Amino acid sequence: MDGSRKRPTPESLVTLASNAAPISRFPVPDLASLPEDMRARILAVQEKAGFVPNVFLALAHRPDEFRAFFAYHDALMEKPGGLSKAEREMIVVATSGANQCLYCVVAHGAILRVRAKNPLIADQVATNYRKADITPRQKAMLDFAMRVSREAETICEADFAAVREHGFTEEDAWDIGAIAAFFGLSNRMANLVTMRPNDEFYAMGRAPK
Amino acid sequence: MDGSRKRPTPESLVTLASNAAPISRFPVPDLASLPEDMRARILAVQEKAGFVPNVFLALAHRPDEFRAFFAYHDALMEKPGGLSKAEREMIVVATSGANQCLYCVVAHGAILRVRAKNPLIADQVATNYRKADITPRQKAMLDFAMRVSREAETICEADFAAVREHGFTEEDAWDIGAIAAFFGLSNRMANLVTMRPNDEFYAMGRAPK
Amino acid sequence: MDGSRKRPTPESLVTLASNAAPISRFPVPDLASLPEDMRARILAVQEKAGFVPNVFLALAHRPDEFRAFFAYHDALMEKPGGLSKAEREMIVVATSGANQCLYCVVAHGAILRVRAKNPLIADQVATNYRKADITPRQKAMLDFAMRVSREAETICEADFAAVREHGFTEEDAWDIGAIAAFFGLSNRMANLVTMRPNDEFYAMGRAPK
Amino acid sequence: MDGSRKRPTPESLVTLASNAAPISRFPVPDLASLPEDMRARILAVQEKAGFVPNVFLALAHRPDEFRAFFAYHDALMEKPGGLSKAEREMIVVATSGANQCLYCVVAHGAILRVRAKNPLIADQVATNYRKADITPRQKAMLDFAMRVSREAETICEADFAAVREHGFTEEDAWDIGAIAAFFGLSNRMANLVTMRPNDEFYAMGRAPK
Amino acid sequence: MDGSRKRPTPESLVTLASNAAPISRFPVPDLASLPEDMRARILAVQEKAGFVPNVFLALAHRPDEFRAFFAYHDALMEKPGGLSKAEREMIVVATSGANQCLYCVVAHGAILRVRAKNPLIADQVATNYRKADITPRQKAMLDFAMRVSREAETICEADFAAVREHGFTEEDAWDIGAIAAFFGLSNRMANLVTMRPNDEFYAMGRAPK
Amino acid sequence: MDGSRKRPTPESLVTLASNAAPISRFPVPDLASLPEDMRARILAVQEKAGFVPNVFLALAHRPDEFRAFFAYHDALMEKPGGLSKAEREMIVVATSGANQCLYCVVAHGAILRVRAKNPLIADQVATNYRKADITPRQKAMLDFAMRVSREAETICEADFAAVREHGFTEEDAWDIGAIAAFFGLSNRMANLVTMRPNDEFYAMGRAPK
Repeated sequence: MDGSRKRPTPESLVTLASNAAPISRFPVPDLASLPEDMRARILAVQEKAGFVPNVFLALAHRPDEFRAFFAYHDALMEKPGGLSKAEREMIVVATSGANQCLYCVVAHGAILRVRAKNPLIADQVATNYRKADITPRQKAMLDFAMRVSREAETICEADFAAVREHGFTEEDAWDIGAIAAFFGLSNRMANLVTMRPNDEFYAMGRAPK
Repeated sequence: MDGSRKRPTPESLVTLASNAAPISRFPVPDLASLPEDMRARILAVQEKAGFVPNVFLALAHRPDEFRAFFAYHDALMEKPGGLSKAEREMIVVATSGANQCLYCVVAHGAILRVRAKNPLIADQVATNYRKADITPRQKAMLDFAMRVSREAETICEADFAAVREHGFTEEDAWDIGAIAAFFGLSNRMANLVTMRPNDEFYAMGRAPK
Repeated sequence: MDGSRKRPTPESLVTLASNAAPISRFPVPDLASLPEDMRARILAVQEKAGFVPNVFLALAHRPDEFRAFFAYHDALMEKPGGLSKAEREMIVVATSGANQCLYCVVAHGAILRVRAKNPLIADQVATNYRKADITPRQKAMLDFAMRVSREAETICEADFAAVREHGFTEEDAWDIGAIAAFFGLSNRMANLVTMRPNDEFYAMGRAPK
Repeated sequence: MDGSRKRPTPESLVTLASNAAPISRFPVPDLASLPEDMRARILAVQEKAGFVPNVFLALAHRPDEFRAFFAYHDALMEKPGGLSKAEREMIVVATSGANQCLYCVVAHGAILRVRAKNPLIADQVATNYRKADITPRQKAMLDFAMRVSREAETICEADFAAVREHGFTEEDAWDIGAIAAFFGLSNRMANLVTMRPNDEFYAMGRAPK
Repeated sequence: MDGSRKRPTPESLVTLASNAAPISRFPVPDLASLPEDMRARILAVQEKAGFVPNVFLALAHRPDEFRAFFAYHDALMEKPGGLSKAEREMIVVATSGANQCLYCVVAHGAILRVRAKNPLIADQVATNYRKADITPRQKAMLDFAMRVSREAETICEADFAAVREHGFTEEDAWDIGAIAAFFGLSNRMANLVTMRPNDEFYAMGRAPK
Repeated sequence: MDGSRKRPTPESLVTLASNAAPISRFPVPDLASLPEDMRARILAVQEKAGFVPNVFLALAHRPDEFRAFFAYHDALMEKPGGLSKAEREMIVVATSGANQCLYCVVAHGAILRVRAKNPLIADQVATNYRKADITPRQKAMLDFAMRVSREAETICEADFAAVREHGFTEEDAWDIGAIAAFFGLSNRMANLVTMRPNDEFYAMGRAPK
């Protein structure tokens, strides 16, 4: 892959996107028309991933929501803490599977495969995490995440105790719950706008290590 | 109410909070210890409302999440658009009722009463919006919001058509859905941390106009 | 309030009601046309409450059902026993919240506030009793009531044991279950006829004690 | 069957009951100890049916509730109106099947077979009324009854319109809904007390006509 | 019953069937037109039961599926093992009740009554097996069967442990689960084609032993 | 791939399987110990696929059920008819996703990708078929399949009409429903025995065509 492919000008990027199937049922802005901070973030992601994940283009329709969304995302997914990055992605994939969110299952499934260096894990966690090749600690983490995602109104001290038994701290429990809650928002937005995952995500990280 | 009561020093505020029942099962930071931008926002709210809504203190435990949360909130609730401020609060109250979120039903119920200048509306919308004193247009708005909140995976063009029939634009539909999605996050966080609504909210806006 | 306002003649009462929004989608009888026993009961309630709760007028459409309904109500709510009157109202409010019954949540929420001398309790119990300011014994009572209300077919000895651990007797368990069952009937009737709670209920008992 | 079998003394009746498996997890009173009005009602039923349906004995544990329960029952099931007696029993059987109430399915299934003079109808309606040998009008009636029984909070004008199309009046709709609501109470009580249907009910009305 | 009634020619059988209400919404083949192996199986069943259960005629529309269906049936229901034949029928009746399958509840209810020599058991198990006159071991068996039938995705080692405590082996657990799974298929096919149970089933085995 | 890898002897196959993680919580037989017909079928599949799908080994624990299962499978999946082979696999993948069956989603997802010559389709259909790149006709097919899979008790003529509008015949409707019903059995068995999909399936058919 040469430099010109890795660093398309904003114009070429827009051309690329407009040739593909719609990535949102709402309008998708030209990259060139975006405020500088948003364009910079999008180009940085493109530099790293080799393509622009559609969530950036679909949400760019609403700049203020875009900024808040990614600030929230980073606050939960990029911070240090007791959960590995792969474990955070497991939470995203398991809860997005339960919420039937195509965008998040496919995009974060790809990231999970890459971060866990495991080509099988994403399909397992998305379909039925109880049958996945994960540790009992990770299963307890996903049980807690699913409680927050699907029936938060009944969360009680027994749920916190269950993750503490596996060595999770109170702060870890907040992280697990907050990731489940944030991607519940993400899942609803993606289903609302029929957000289309980039074709590139489907095959990422599937080669055995 | 004299000035010293309306503008407590950060110290008096903390004293107030520490006398009350716990407002979160997680630690609540001293106002004095918070970064300047967060403290400024909290004091501004206090100035306006006469007290600090507990959500500010409970989420302040995580400054980056706090900032993203309120940025997202403002992007949806403070923007211009086809929905009145009271209608936005209706969406919050109806979906929070379905999600059994005590904090949001009580706090946003109060705001809804104030904004709609209607002392009955919040209890109606929280309990069963189908029986509330609202217009058919507002009922269609809440039907759409509940679809996003409870079964976003099946949202389809018929749902958009149903709100269009009542004069809502595509952008209005995004607003309705995004508010429902964002408060789904808020509801899950409030249930996760057992966030306690301030006593002040319960009686706000209940005097007949 | 002078005596003539506190004791309206049946005629003035009917005038009052006919000026308000409809209190039932079915016909509501004139008080004057009702059999003597029903009119006496209604006037007695009015004397005590200062107004006639709409449930009396809405159900008066069917005199025999009216009589049986209030006889059943009194047999459960006015009898002596191990549950306080406030606790019985908690059961009504929690189960009516789950059943999304506007009339019962608003009317019995008012009675609960008055009987518990607590302006916050009704909104808490109606929205999510697991987060309410109630005792562990009361929470166990409401867990049992919700089991009867929502999944009575799976009630088993473990449910009875759970309330016994909090000091409830077998007879108390019958009371809890029977109140949940009776108000399940009430909730369904109120939703069937779109019974409107009197405006007076919303603000009752909200002043701090 | 001779007179002495048709008219057992209260004493012989109690003996009969005490030999059988428990008919309630709560105490069942001696017939002799009951107030005269209750004993008279029970003996009248026994005279007609040849045995005392267990619901009379199980609920007699609470005389005031007993009286209200049967007054309500008679107000709905014995009144004139647009629904035949067999149709009312269909409503009981269909909703009791959905509520998994053994007592009501078996006891009212028997009454339905007798009243409809149809040995097959009760099992059909209890298991899946959509596949039963009933008229489209009766199917619409049961659709409405199930709406009230299972999701009354969403009942709306379209539901009333659907039964009107089959010739049901507004008063008929009240009857359908009220029967569904009342037996929802009955179903919950029967599951709460583990009420046992009399063996006699199972075979009643099964001989082809 | 004389021989000519017990052994009708294929022609008389078809006449019988064509006089009855439709037994399937799909075409039902003439017995005479069926391949020899299928006709032989059907005539053998008729010889034994005195009539041809409609499932044989309804599924005969698809000979290859017919053969696989009954081979699967026999592999589970006719094999030796730790479950009695009556217990296997209990599993069928309980899960078919939950799946609202009229054909299986009625037909296998009849077989259960016959095999258990108990005229009451089928109605009890179909309506609410938790209230049936069965042993704790049989109740644990049905709990396991219902888990497989209704929420197999969450089956875990605790479910296997629960049946082991009642003396069931691992092979018995497979049997219980496989019967629940197979009749889940059968229930869906019967509801798909609106399969009608033979009138004969309703009264079979109802005479007290 | 040379011949010796494509055609392992039964002995080498067993070695392979025993080195892998468990493919079932129940015993898995040696290929050598299996009856000739089963071994022949398994070797034929291996010849074609290059490996033995674990479902063959897991179900071989019960030879009679194995034979019936695959006979049923072939009767539905290998027959001619109005559904393409890829469409049949779509039904399997969509319903297995809803049933959270890891084995069927992964194994039949692979087959679907191969048959549809589309590397994206399986993840789309498994996660949320409403958002998949399929035709309106295929979406109607999957709507019908999901009705049979998840709520067959309410299937009615309107469901058949909906697929007829897209050109499906009555026989096609049987096929759609029967595939959904059969894989409901398969899903329950796979979850019961914790059947592990072969690693090979995950990457099959993912290369863009």
